[in-house]
Amino acid sequence: MIWNVARRACRMEPSTIWEALKISQRPGVISFAVGLPSSQSFPVGAFADACDRVLRTGDEAGARAALQYAASDGHPLLREWVAERLPWRVDPSQVLITNGSQQGLDLLSRVLLDDGSRVFVEAQTYPGALQAFAPTEPDVAAIRTDAEGVCIDDLLAKAAGSGARARFLYVLPNFQNPTGRTMTEARRKALVERALAIGLPLVEDDPYGELWFEKPPPPPLAALHPEGCVYLGSFSKVLAPGFRLGYVVAPNALALKLLQAKQASDLHSPSFNQRVMIEVLRDGFLDRHLPAVREQYRTRCQTMLNALQREFRGAHPLDVEWTAPDGGMFLWLRLPDGLNAMALLPHAVDKGVAFIPGAAFQIGESDPRTLRFSFAAVNDTEIDIGVAAFANVVREQYALLF
Amino acid sequence: MIWNVARRACRMEPSTIWEALKISQRPGVISFAVGLPSSQSFPVGAFADACDRVLRTGDEAGARAALQYAASDGHPLLREWVAERLPWRVDPSQVLITNGSQQGLDLLSRVLLDDGSRVFVEAQTYPGALQAFAPTEPDVAAIRTDAEGVCIDDLLAKAAGSGARARFLYVLPNFQNPTGRTMTEARRKALVERALAIGLPLVEDDPYGELWFEKPPPPPLAALHPEGCVYLGSFSKVLAPGFRLGYVVAPNALALKLLQAKQASDLHSPSFNQRVMIEVLRDGFLDRHLPAVREQYRTRCQTMLNALQREFRGAHPLDVEWTAPDGGMFLWLRLPDGLNAMALLPHAVDKGVAFIPGAAFQIGESDPRTLRFSFAAVNDTEIDIGVAAFANVVREQYALLF
Repeated sequence: MIWNVARRACRMEPSTIWEALKISQRPGVISFAVGLPSSQSFPVGAFADACDRVLRTGDEAGARAALQYAASDGHPLLREWVAERLPWRVDPSQVLITNGSQQGLDLLSRVLLDDGSRVFVEAQTYPGALQAFAPTEPDVAAIRTDAEGVCIDDLLAKAAGSGARARFLYVLPNFQNPTGRTMTEARRKALVERALAIGLPLVEDDPYGELWFEKPPPPPLAALHPEGCVYLGSFSKVLAPGFRLGYVVAPNALALKLLQAKQASDLHSPSFNQRVMIEVLRDGFLDRHLPAVREQYRTRCQTMLNALQREFRGAHPLDVEWTAPDGGMFLWLRLPDGLNAMALLPHAVDKGVAFIPGAAFQIGESDPRTLRFSFAAVNDTEIDIGVAAFANVVREQYALLF
Repeated sequence: MIWNVARRACRMEPSTIWEALKISQRPGVISFAVGLPSSQSFPVGAFADACDRVLRTGDEAGARAALQYAASDGHPLLREWVAERLPWRVDPSQVLITNGSQQGLDLLSRVLLDDGSRVFVEAQTYPGALQAFAPTEPDVAAIRTDAEGVCIDDLLAKAAGSGARARFLYVLPNFQNPTGRTMTEARRKALVERALAIGLPLVEDDPYGELWFEKPPPPPLAALHPEGCVYLGSFSKVLAPGFRLGYVVAPNALALKLLQAKQASDLHSPSFNQRVMIEVLRDGFLDRHLPAVREQYRTRCQTMLNALQREFRGAHPLDVEWTAPDGGMFLWLRLPDGLNAMALLPHAVDKGVAFIPGAAFQIGESDPRTLRFSFAAVNDTEIDIGVAAFANVVREQYALLF
């Protein structure tokens, strides 16, 4: 039997990131590669108690409703919780509950993109977003970034050349994946102002915003201009990704189209998970839970920064650069001139440490010297051993250049 | 701000079925409209115990894994369970865990359909499938059916005119939604044979197959020709739809593409739900649970058939026809000549009973006299009252014709 697949399916490829993850799963390898949150941060007891309240100790009608089909837009109480927590005026009708923010990206792709539509992304960006956009066959353009965020001149130049094909800029302003950088408040204001002036919508992805170390990041882009932004949030990094719950907040006209796309995709997100999540969130649990998560990530990040400092700025310094994030799970490194992160990876894995080469996060021409470390799912000892092993392999390969 | 939406989004419409459901949700109305399974059939205690085993009494690593990200293809034990239960040789690598079978339909649409691809469906079919196919803009053709199933001559004629554009026939062989009909074994064999001869793949949707009344339906089409079929199954009707778990079983070449599409859609189905489902299914629970579900649906169906008999074949007979299903949740009615189900609906709702007009299940030209009753979510008293109210309104409207 011949199965004729669609054009888009012929072009589907396993992602670079998943291939890199496979390499790094060798037993005994310390992985700075995986972008997983720390499973030590998951409030297992709170979830167990919430399941009990939904299925055992709550009213029976609620238990049966948790196992029944439900509305496509999500449970009203969960939508209200999201609307109330966000720092700008959001009506619950604008909130659509999704299977993690990955599904939000997928729904946006279906609702906003035609083949040949222009989408702008940061020069380094989340590969899952590119995967979600790909099936609708848009033309994706990378925008230069600097330490403060998206370079607005580059965006304006590329948007001007795109005319009516331009659909949106996809941007991660907080503790960006992969660079760990946070867009400054000034840059946010300038970006929103200029995007508004040229009529370019913004899609703001904010899975890490709550994971700040010392102080919260500046307000979201959506807070500055709700009508021109879609905002994506997630419970994956603050509570647990295994529940697969996230949300999209959109202007009303768009919210209805997203709802119809959601209905066609999978009818609705699990009623059970939504009701359990409501029980977990009740009475301010998240605000009691988050400080410990933040502290854990802050400590791990500091351990990694200290280790890098020790290895590369000590007695035998080497020209390795890295970002110092104010929150989140990632930092971004650049190897000395002449080295290539992709070529380095197998040697690093042989020495017992893994990372993701920067090429996985870049479209078109990419800087082969860059790579991403995640500090979220490794403990302090693993960080020290892993960074030392990494430094060894960098030195070894660097020495071979001469 | 102007949001330019994609062409496919401009054409998205709220489905007829959801609009009909809204009408029927008026308080006090007995609804034969909703296709919900009976929430009385949900094994609440088994789910509560399973949540406990996953989060509380099992090993802690398992609890944390249930809350963590997981592989896109699904939990190995759940995929094994599905593979072992199916009545033909299936390797677990062919099984992809999805968010209900609705997501299976969506993934098939992405992987198999280009704009203009030809898809064949039964003359009356599940509207959610049409919704899942629509975003990829195929050309959908309805195939005539009779009491035994798909009319093969009509399929061959329409497939011959479609050439390379033909991608698959979508078919529900067991207790079909909406007609309640079951394809005979002879028709299944003939269909598979002829589809194989012309190289037309089959997509077999089987959410109701376990809900038989007296004896199991004939073997699935996929069992007759695994390489030419994709099979969709679901836990929604046999255990609980609120967990949103289903599966796609596909030939290996296609399984890999479906996996990549799943990854882009939402990374994976909730790890927690999959682990809870494995705990529920352990030790043959489903086979102990199903007899009671079947008996409940059988009884309700019989009550509905008896009520229809009483109302329309009694002292004052009326030319209303209906199917007598061997399982599932639905029966299909046809009003007397001159009546229109869509026009009848508001009058019926006024009298306290709701149904779905047949137009919701048909593409192109449809028979305005047809409508669907579901007996799954109503008890015997509601069935008797609802059918009597329905008979009243039919008589009343019929009298107005003269």
